[in-house]
Amino acid sequence: MLTTLEIMKRALSVKSILASISTEDKNRALSYMADMLIENKDEILKASELDVEAAKGKISDVMLDRLSLSEKRIEAMADGIREVIALPDPVGKVISSVTRPNGIVIEKVSAPMGVVAIIYESRPNVTSDAAALTLKSGNVCILRGGKEAARSARAITDALRKGISKAGLPEDLVQIVQDTSRESANELMNGVGYIDLLIPRGGAGLIKACTENAKVPCIQTGTGICHIYIDGDADIEKALNILENAKTSRPSVCNAAEVCLIDERIADKILPLIKERLCEKREACGSIPVELRLDEKAAAIIEGKPALDNDFDTEFLDYILAIKVVSGVKEACEHISSHSTGHSEAIITENSDAADYFTRVIDSAAVYVNASTRFTDGGEFGLGCEIGISTQKLHARGPMGLCELNTYKYIIRGNGQVR
Amino acid sequence: MLTTLEIMKRALSVKSILASISTEDKNRALSYMADMLIENKDEILKASELDVEAAKGKISDVMLDRLSLSEKRIEAMADGIREVIALPDPVGKVISSVTRPNGIVIEKVSAPMGVVAIIYESRPNVTSDAAALTLKSGNVCILRGGKEAARSARAITDALRKGISKAGLPEDLVQIVQDTSRESANELMNGVGYIDLLIPRGGAGLIKACTENAKVPCIQTGTGICHIYIDGDADIEKALNILENAKTSRPSVCNAAEVCLIDERIADKILPLIKERLCEKREACGSIPVELRLDEKAAAIIEGKPALDNDFDTEFLDYILAIKVVSGVKEACEHISSHSTGHSEAIITENSDAADYFTRVIDSAAVYVNASTRFTDGGEFGLGCEIGISTQKLHARGPMGLCELNTYKYIIRGNGQVR
Repeated sequence: MLTTLEIMKRALSVKSILASISTEDKNRALSYMADMLIENKDEILKASELDVEAAKGKISDVMLDRLSLSEKRIEAMADGIREVIALPDPVGKVISSVTRPNGIVIEKVSAPMGVVAIIYESRPNVTSDAAALTLKSGNVCILRGGKEAARSARAITDALRKGISKAGLPEDLVQIVQDTSRESANELMNGVGYIDLLIPRGGAGLIKACTENAKVPCIQTGTGICHIYIDGDADIEKALNILENAKTSRPSVCNAAEVCLIDERIADKILPLIKERLCEKREACGSIPVELRLDEKAAAIIEGKPALDNDFDTEFLDYILAIKVVSGVKEACEHISSHSTGHSEAIITENSDAADYFTRVIDSAAVYVNASTRFTDGGEFGLGCEIGISTQKLHARGPMGLCELNTYKYIIRGNGQVR
Repeated sequence: MLTTLEIMKRALSVKSILASISTEDKNRALSYMADMLIENKDEILKASELDVEAAKGKISDVMLDRLSLSEKRIEAMADGIREVIALPDPVGKVISSVTRPNGIVIEKVSAPMGVVAIIYESRPNVTSDAAALTLKSGNVCILRGGKEAARSARAITDALRKGISKAGLPEDLVQIVQDTSRESANELMNGVGYIDLLIPRGGAGLIKACTENAKVPCIQTGTGICHIYIDGDADIEKALNILENAKTSRPSVCNAAEVCLIDERIADKILPLIKERLCEKREACGSIPVELRLDEKAAAIIEGKPALDNDFDTEFLDYILAIKVVSGVKEACEHISSHSTGHSEAIITENSDAADYFTRVIDSAAVYVNASTRFTDGGEFGLGCEIGISTQKLHARGPMGLCELNTYKYIIRGNGQVR
């Protein structure tokens, strides 16, 4: 078993190769990587069974389901890699070009980051997704998954490396750290000189550990306490549709809404309708009803559990919605500014002044007018894919696709100019 | 005296104001800031005299000169602020816009970072430059200078705040931390929730401390071990001109060359000419000659001090040049990859294959063909200004102007769309 340091050294040694190989070579490697996942599916399934067996009784059924692989899921992973082939190569694009008065020509050109380390948890498909996206964007990747998925992530990586090798490229373009102890994560976070970018993907604890402790550049991804503000001038039907969608279409993801702010001008009218739509109707038709947690003003209008202070600072990831009545768009923005994680927020209004104020003042990656926060996603944004959703402001914000896995460099051509 | 925490809280409280004020208001504030520097020049000069008096005997004459202010230097600072007025406002630009098949319109719009903290050393003009650039780019700034310049930085900040106030804006848009102990720098580095971006400006020690310890997003600036590679197919005259310029036009700055790599095909011919141009001719005409530190192969051709290993990893910032003979462009790139700080490197060649290889493989912020590394500068690149030169890959690389002090956000407008 290689140490983390040995893995980082190997990654560094192949970094310059990947920056200069052609789009065709990268696509051929991706194609073989997909083939090899299918060809090695028995080994991958066997590894997955061992992972699931070992995890039983230790993690929840939802997590167990995320962990387990089937033939269909492996095929979906291979399809995912093939979709990356179709995406444009982000490397070597001339972003801008200027000829200076002294005659030097300055081109700003997109370039790979170099070595990208991805620390993630137990979803085995992250292994193939991350490997495909980093390779296509000209980066060498070091994967470090969670211990629950260690065997399947290893088997998937082995298959991907066979594909890379078959394409005539060094298989160390994709490596996995097999040591899943905290120590190996720390070594990656401290890999100054080896790691150009660290991307943590997973729960709030993992992300906090990485962004606060990493000495290498790190992207903060994920946590989303997303707000829906229903303005006094909202179209009621749009508001109810968007709120139900943002809260219930997939409560476990980061772009689901956790908090609803309601303009006091409309509270009397809409709160009973929210209760009807999110609780009563859903229960009647066999869907999971939403648990409403109400501030004092809302509780004076409809029945529900009283909200505790920390309900407005919690990513529930569940069928729970905190509701607060505010005096208007200004108070809504103030509340969001102090409680948001900078992910996605929406205003529902037909009033363009309120919409303009909201989009100008709200300082989050994605700011919506009359649409569901659930659209914050690389695919929905038209990026074709996504390696994560950045909630920081440095480098990339919101969904990160292939372009966000590149940096740029300046290439300056002269004819002997001096300063 | 406010504590660093109190200063960060005040900055946070005015952040939303600055994001939404007009270009005209920002420019008016800048104009008053410049006026107030002139109007308060006596106070500033008095403070500067006290700083210089206290520093005498403790710092070098060069540093003492950097520290001291004159009426002319204050006027230059005011002119610097007025130049920022003329630069385009980077905030609110639509970077891209896409209408998705479901009808939602996704705009990617430039937006301020928020609160920018700048930790710097003893140059008083950084105070006014940094304040002007952050304000124009819609950011609130917290300045934290070195202890040698504490009085003058304070006096300059006081004058700038009077200008902001005269423009009817909150003076806390620009604040200075008066505590110049290590503790105040640590508080800024740990200011999660308050500081959106930390920019250290100064020596290698300061920058390393910030990039390795900061829990807030941080830009690595500055250190430049810049290389000039003279290829076998170089034009000799261009090579000598560029090398002399890159080494001697201003040796104390980060874009000066520190290392010269020479293709063995041309070494016999060019090394004596380098010695003549950089040492003998300069001495004869009263300029400071360059001390050459030679690897074994170069020492077999001309006389000079033998280079020690660490001479190839040192930012001399002085009239010293390390010279190494290499077997060609490939070895030159390998050497640069293991010794460069990622700032600026140049190849001198008339061979387009060698130039293409060099620009593709070298992973530095600025890669030159037949031009001096001294051009890596915001002004020379046409950015109009510069808050620093980034040597990292995340967010900004090379000279950072107003645009690099912005992030972006997505504004998504719909008509009730759900996912």
